[in-house]
Amino acid sequence: MLDLPFLPFCVLLGALGFVCVAFVSAWCQHWRGGFALDGSAQTFNWHPVLMVTGMVVLYGAAALVYRLPPAWRGPKLPWKVLHGALALAAFGLAVLGLAAVFRFHNAHGTPNMYSLHSWLGLATVLLFSCQWLAGFSAFLLPWAPAWLRALYKPVHVFFGSTILMLSVASCVSGINEKLFFSLKNGTTEYKRLPAEAVFANVLGLLILLFGVLVVGALARPSWKRPDADSPDSCQ
Amino acid sequence: MLDLPFLPFCVLLGALGFVCVAFVSAWCQHWRGGFALDGSAQTFNWHPVLMVTGMVVLYGAAALVYRLPPAWRGPKLPWKVLHGALALAAFGLAVLGLAAVFRFHNAHGTPNMYSLHSWLGLATVLLFSCQWLAGFSAFLLPWAPAWLRALYKPVHVFFGSTILMLSVASCVSGINEKLFFSLKNGTTEYKRLPAEAVFANVLGLLILLFGVLVVGALARPSWKRPDADSPDSCQ
Repeated sequence: MLDLPFLPFCVLLGALGFVCVAFVSAWCQHWRGGFALDGSAQTFNWHPVLMVTGMVVLYGAAALVYRLPPAWRGPKLPWKVLHGALALAAFGLAVLGLAAVFRFHNAHGTPNMYSLHSWLGLATVLLFSCQWLAGFSAFLLPWAPAWLRALYKPVHVFFGSTILMLSVASCVSGINEKLFFSLKNGTTEYKRLPAEAVFANVLGLLILLFGVLVVGALARPSWKRPDADSPDSCQ
Repeated sequence: MLDLPFLPFCVLLGALGFVCVAFVSAWCQHWRGGFALDGSAQTFNWHPVLMVTGMVVLYGAAALVYRLPPAWRGPKLPWKVLHGALALAAFGLAVLGLAAVFRFHNAHGTPNMYSLHSWLGLATVLLFSCQWLAGFSAFLLPWAPAWLRALYKPVHVFFGSTILMLSVASCVSGINEKLFFSLKNGTTEYKRLPAEAVFANVLGLLILLFGVLVVGALARPSWKRPDADSPDSCQ
């Protein structure tokens, strides 16, 4: 593929991630009534903002830490800590995002966990929690033997990309679902494609683009740390 | 990663693909009233069946052709023809699947192309048409120079996995959307999780699993044709 340098790509990706967070926040603020913590519809609005910020943008940043050229030199430990800390922050936001939607449902007597979106979303967050714990135990705690690290590393890398793909699929199905719920009266019906629908559809496509670019960057051989395939040393 | 042999994996994947097609057909036949060509809701039912069969299962089969060990030996041309033919069949089913939903919408005066699902789905099929045409022109027609093939090949490989991920995200958002449309009365409300909802949610997860396994198999270094990174010779 064309020899695109990583850093300009990274700046572009950062800008795209910022636009995703700005779009989802603007959607909830401008069209869905803003934010609250009282169990109302404004409580729900934290859900899309926290999930997109955590499970897509911060998660993407965590995944790309080892592709930064400064991470190729010197000891790995500081970069491992940064990778784990960003992933933990992403996980924390995802848990808060789940709490927001459960609180909203419970306050309105709406059942939880019935739609395909909710099944997929929760499965993704659970998978992410396993991934984080296994990664922490194998790569940051000092007692995992080198053969175990070498065995687990490609599994961790595979699930790293997979969880991001599942997050993006959850976001797309969630935005689609929310628009069918919210836009159903007269001139604001979803099928009449009001401004809100165009805006949120574009948000969905931007999230997809972000996810595809991160997964593509992770798969690009020339952006991998040169010793990426060598067994991981104990810290 | 554990050294899983490709052929048993392939049999498992074929069985999973068959289950996906059987599930989507059973959903439409048993709960959604079966199939017709008269513009009714039964016409719509061809849409999920054709999209899952074409854009997920046949597409996945086409993508994995070069991972079959017999494809590693001897001339590439027969395998290229098989890859292109399976992809063309997948594209044909996708076009018929789009025709089914457009016919249903037009017969009922419903606007086309307003939901995020429809935007994503159509973008995926359009991207697939570009991918097929570019692949055919570069790799099957005899006049593309070797440098162009070498330049385009990683792009084709990247978009091969990307289009499958987009297809899967389209299927998940489409199943979710259809269940909200169809299950809204009394005991069959989606949020009460009737048998149809559980069945179709499981279908969505099986499609996701199929997509993840195909993308994972494509990325696995030991399953790639040994000369996969060498420039492609003219046929």
